[in-house]
Amino acid sequence: MFQESYIECKVKKGITAAKGFKSVGIHCGVKRVKKDLALIVSDVPATAAGVFTLNKVQAAPVLVCKEHLMNNNSFRAIVCNSGNANACTGEKGYKDAVAMANETASVLGISPQEVFVSSTGVIGEKLPIEKITTGIKRAAAHLSESGYLSAAEAIMTTDTFAKSHETSFLVNGIEVNIGGISKGSGMIHPNMATMLGFVTTDAAISKSTLQDLLKATCDKTFNRIIVDGDTSTNDMVIMLANGASGVTIEEGTDEYKLFEEELFELLKKLSIDIVKDGEGATKVIEITVEGALTDADAEKAARTVALSPLVKTAIHGEDANWGRILAAVGYSGIEFNPDKFEITINEIPILKENYFVTLPNVVANQTLKPEKINLLLELHGGNGKATCWTCDFSEEYVKINGSYRT
Amino acid sequence: MFQESYIECKVKKGITAAKGFKSVGIHCGVKRVKKDLALIVSDVPATAAGVFTLNKVQAAPVLVCKEHLMNNNSFRAIVCNSGNANACTGEKGYKDAVAMANETASVLGISPQEVFVSSTGVIGEKLPIEKITTGIKRAAAHLSESGYLSAAEAIMTTDTFAKSHETSFLVNGIEVNIGGISKGSGMIHPNMATMLGFVTTDAAISKSTLQDLLKATCDKTFNRIIVDGDTSTNDMVIMLANGASGVTIEEGTDEYKLFEEELFELLKKLSIDIVKDGEGATKVIEITVEGALTDADAEKAARTVALSPLVKTAIHGEDANWGRILAAVGYSGIEFNPDKFEITINEIPILKENYFVTLPNVVANQTLKPEKINLLLELHGGNGKATCWTCDFSEEYVKINGSYRT
Repeated sequence: MFQESYIECKVKKGITAAKGFKSVGIHCGVKRVKKDLALIVSDVPATAAGVFTLNKVQAAPVLVCKEHLMNNNSFRAIVCNSGNANACTGEKGYKDAVAMANETASVLGISPQEVFVSSTGVIGEKLPIEKITTGIKRAAAHLSESGYLSAAEAIMTTDTFAKSHETSFLVNGIEVNIGGISKGSGMIHPNMATMLGFVTTDAAISKSTLQDLLKATCDKTFNRIIVDGDTSTNDMVIMLANGASGVTIEEGTDEYKLFEEELFELLKKLSIDIVKDGEGATKVIEITVEGALTDADAEKAARTVALSPLVKTAIHGEDANWGRILAAVGYSGIEFNPDKFEITINEIPILKENYFVTLPNVVANQTLKPEKINLLLELHGGNGKATCWTCDFSEEYVKINGSYRT
Repeated sequence: MFQESYIECKVKKGITAAKGFKSVGIHCGVKRVKKDLALIVSDVPATAAGVFTLNKVQAAPVLVCKEHLMNNNSFRAIVCNSGNANACTGEKGYKDAVAMANETASVLGISPQEVFVSSTGVIGEKLPIEKITTGIKRAAAHLSESGYLSAAEAIMTTDTFAKSHETSFLVNGIEVNIGGISKGSGMIHPNMATMLGFVTTDAAISKSTLQDLLKATCDKTFNRIIVDGDTSTNDMVIMLANGASGVTIEEGTDEYKLFEEELFELLKKLSIDIVKDGEGATKVIEITVEGALTDADAEKAARTVALSPLVKTAIHGEDANWGRILAAVGYSGIEFNPDKFEITINEIPILKENYFVTLPNVVANQTLKPEKINLLLELHGGNGKATCWTCDFSEEYVKINGSYRT
């Protein structure tokens, strides 16, 4: 129901916006018809960073990526299949993930250690590895600077639109680019809604700086979107920095700050697209908690509200039910004074201190009409602040989840 | 859709099964038509115990009950209205809760400190206190040993059936009784789904022993039922022990153990009735985790599975999706080895170690046909064990929650 990003990504270069990157997405046969294999390659060696799922059950490609990231400083490619998660597949699964790296390295003439491997799809089924290795050969032959959309499409599972964004800015007069693609639509279908993000930049950034930067930025973007709270076995965000722009970004400089801001805005767009694509979602909800004792408290409260089925169904029904929101903050476990609690929806105050209801219900409900909802919760207890994003909760979600196989 | 408990409570004495207790439920005008005021009274002074919501937002009656419990050793009555939670109502709300205790004390000729006050219903609206105090007078005139069903009905909000159970057993040849009523049906309607439990016994038990016993038993019953994870501002369980049986229960004795078991079974029934009554629920799911490192770990895992919208919708759709269950345990935060994970549904193993799927999907799905689902998750990592209860998640839940006002 949100087509905006799809249209946007048609006219942009996404993952290949950064100089020296090529990509492609093809159909190799894991899925019946749709594209299911993406390849992203840097012309020259790049540094890399990765952020991975905290689920104790980690899919084989996650393990392989972590090993490669830990043991190497130079990287060239990301290969990703959709349609099968290669998770809970034991030894065979691990071998298959290694085989994907090996095949990619072989056709590109690089080392397997320079390749990141990713999978997304059904859990517990063995990978049709021959189809994938054959596919990798074919994909490599079609790598191009205009392969951004096909790559974005090839990592989709239950996603209803491709998620692709980019940004371009000047550092001392020289153009620097960051581009990225993402996938995810709430864990709706049979464990197929892994969250993936692949990001490229033509800035030069040291491996350790890039890792800190990616981790910190993911903590405020990909880790702040909440669809249903379920965390997948395959989630990962990988970033490559190849230096092709000639600009180096070092920690503590003004350029670093600028780069950080641009990366944040880009990952935020890639993240919010995932929320928009939440199964049955009709609204994107930005929840900001201010005035908590600490930022951590603010995040805890915002997350609890974002997870509450009661709040999400009320917003779906365009019902400005402040009691549900207050009760959710109440059981989030943070310290605050309920008497001072205030709620503003899309810049209109609906609850002020001492439970003062500013508007009749029917009027307050109007604030929930738009597709984008800004929920501001003011605790008046300190300077702690945090924002997270979620979507509303519709009958569609349950319908699809209970009966996707029939 | 579950009428069984309703039929059961028609032929039992519930809250008045214990000797020396009378109760009644009437309509006093908070609700339009249905009963909305319950009174439970002991003929003689009783000891009492209470377990209260951990929500930071605590309704006025919760505050009043805690004060009375802390400052007194002798108790006689519980008064409870439904239809209005008297929560987030400021000073006026506190005065109203005190007024309910005062009026009850006045008509019964006891001290206000001997009265527990409870409310359940809409948050944020002032109590129509005159209707309630007038109602208390009328209710007191109708107290009787056969008033158990009307009391159970008068504390209902969105509940679709009254919840009332009792147990009777011999201690050294003398009959001892425990009875109780509960309410709650998942936090569905506008914060009206507070969980309440009122329990009476004719055993004599010291206040401190009773408190320990009630707390420990609630931790394994009322605190182990999960409908949607939202915790209300008004939740409470109150227990009165009046000694009318002539039997004294002291800690460390065989009688204590027996009493503890009987209380556990009773509170379990009262709790499971709440799960059964979860909005749109079609199945009760008992989730037992075994083989965790600790009991606390087992509980954490069981709760996470019980809260997963993905697991709950899959069970609703009768889809034995083991990947969703394993992934939920994976993100519960506990230590375990996924390779050793096993799942048994209604005594039929569907997943064995090393992700070995024992049955074809269509056959495994048959295990989810019954209305009562026993989900046993074996981690093979230690002796930690815990059980909790939840219900499935249907389209009805969302439909009702998003549109209850229209």
